[in-house]
Amino acid sequence: MRSPEALRGLVESYLGELALTPQLGGLAESMRYALLGGKRIRPVLCLATGEAAGAEVEAVLPAAAALEFVQAFSLVHDDLPALDDDAVRRGRPSTHVEFGEAVAVIAGDALLAEAFRLALAYPTPAVAGELAGATLGMIGGQYLDVTGQHGDRARLDRLKTGCLFDAAVGCALWVAEVPELEQGPWRAFGAELGPIFQLVDDILDGDGVVLSHGEEEARSLAEQATERALARLEAVEADTSVLAEIVAGLAVRTS
Amino acid sequence: MRSPEALRGLVESYLGELALTPQLGGLAESMRYALLGGKRIRPVLCLATGEAAGAEVEAVLPAAAALEFVQAFSLVHDDLPALDDDAVRRGRPSTHVEFGEAVAVIAGDALLAEAFRLALAYPTPAVAGELAGATLGMIGGQYLDVTGQHGDRARLDRLKTGCLFDAAVGCALWVAEVPELEQGPWRAFGAELGPIFQLVDDILDGDGVVLSHGEEEARSLAEQATERALARLEAVEADTSVLAEIVAGLAVRTS
Repeated sequence: MRSPEALRGLVESYLGELALTPQLGGLAESMRYALLGGKRIRPVLCLATGEAAGAEVEAVLPAAAALEFVQAFSLVHDDLPALDDDAVRRGRPSTHVEFGEAVAVIAGDALLAEAFRLALAYPTPAVAGELAGATLGMIGGQYLDVTGQHGDRARLDRLKTGCLFDAAVGCALWVAEVPELEQGPWRAFGAELGPIFQLVDDILDGDGVVLSHGEEEARSLAEQATERALARLEAVEADTSVLAEIVAGLAVRTS
Repeated sequence: MRSPEALRGLVESYLGELALTPQLGGLAESMRYALLGGKRIRPVLCLATGEAAGAEVEAVLPAAAALEFVQAFSLVHDDLPALDDDAVRRGRPSTHVEFGEAVAVIAGDALLAEAFRLALAYPTPAVAGELAGATLGMIGGQYLDVTGQHGDRARLDRLKTGCLFDAAVGCALWVAEVPELEQGPWRAFGAELGPIFQLVDDILDGDGVVLSHGEEEARSLAEQATERALARLEAVEADTSVLAEIVAGLAVRTS
């Protein structure tokens, strides 16, 4: 079993060497720019799940990369002036600041389409199907966000953040050919990860649950979610030690 | 064999009754708006190809609808202020004028993701794979367009218009389970359709080839492409009468 750090290294190499569709031409530069500097949490989780479920890590890489492409697509479009209007992303100018708004719109589109091309490298359409469902959920969350429907914050977070974490586990299960009837315990584990990530995000940014319930309550909720995730892992019949390490890392991350 | 008009009716009913992903919530309204009023040329072509190749028309509908979703996605994003800045589309306010720019960006994203969900309804990932390739080519053409690289107009048209026509034929072949080795003659036919459509578009709009070579030359090129398409159809071993009717209609369309 490879460590989370080793898996992260694999993701970086794979993303760095990955050939994009030739017809995209010069657009590839802005797409690669948008992919730089991510923490690779979702792809690492996908690889670790796949390895724990019995797949070769290398076989999981296209699915893992597809998740990172979807994540990058969503950030490029979220940052646009008409949406969150964020000029800085990961300490660098946002894609639309660096390449202009028109290129940023279509770079986001191309990242999404390439994500599906990657997920379609498998003989089963289930990997790409998992990705499509998660992407649509994520966009539904983004819609609640841009239209100011923050009333149900939990639902918004569930869609915007949770769906792609669910898919990180789900895509790996399909690649590892875990039968649908045996996926339940794995998916129950996956469903706890979005909340951990989001709660820690709120604590780091001082918003969301921290604003509504205070930092102490947010920390307590994050601890409970972490304990639940670890308990769910116990119910999975496999060596889930690396996944437990990833959960622990999620709970204490500082960036 | 159903007539092009009957097939168009099927597409309209299917699109009208199609359930969108529930998590998209209120975003569905803008997506349906963006789907209104199209000529449905690509889905009709897809259905006719599928039926000629031996598939049940009903089985081809999800793939045909997926093509129309990709077309709608591309128009919504093309019309954005940062790109073509078109306030009117199909005689009505563009999606961003009607719903605002933020909603238009994510409505386009959702149309693209739903297109993949539709194309993933098949047991083979080849339908969605065909769609992914075409979408990426189309985006490559859009990049040449927004960055003003019009030098090679033929390449731009080939990517922006041709790819999705190719996929209309290609998706239908996968649904009809035409073996890859037998797809050649069908695909040779499909490759002539983008140019016919684009040349007639240029004639109707008085731009493109009409500006560079004059209307007479454009009409002559369109006629030649139409003759080539009909000749290619002759090489296909199937009842291609409805496809011939569609080609004839493409060549003489007035809107």
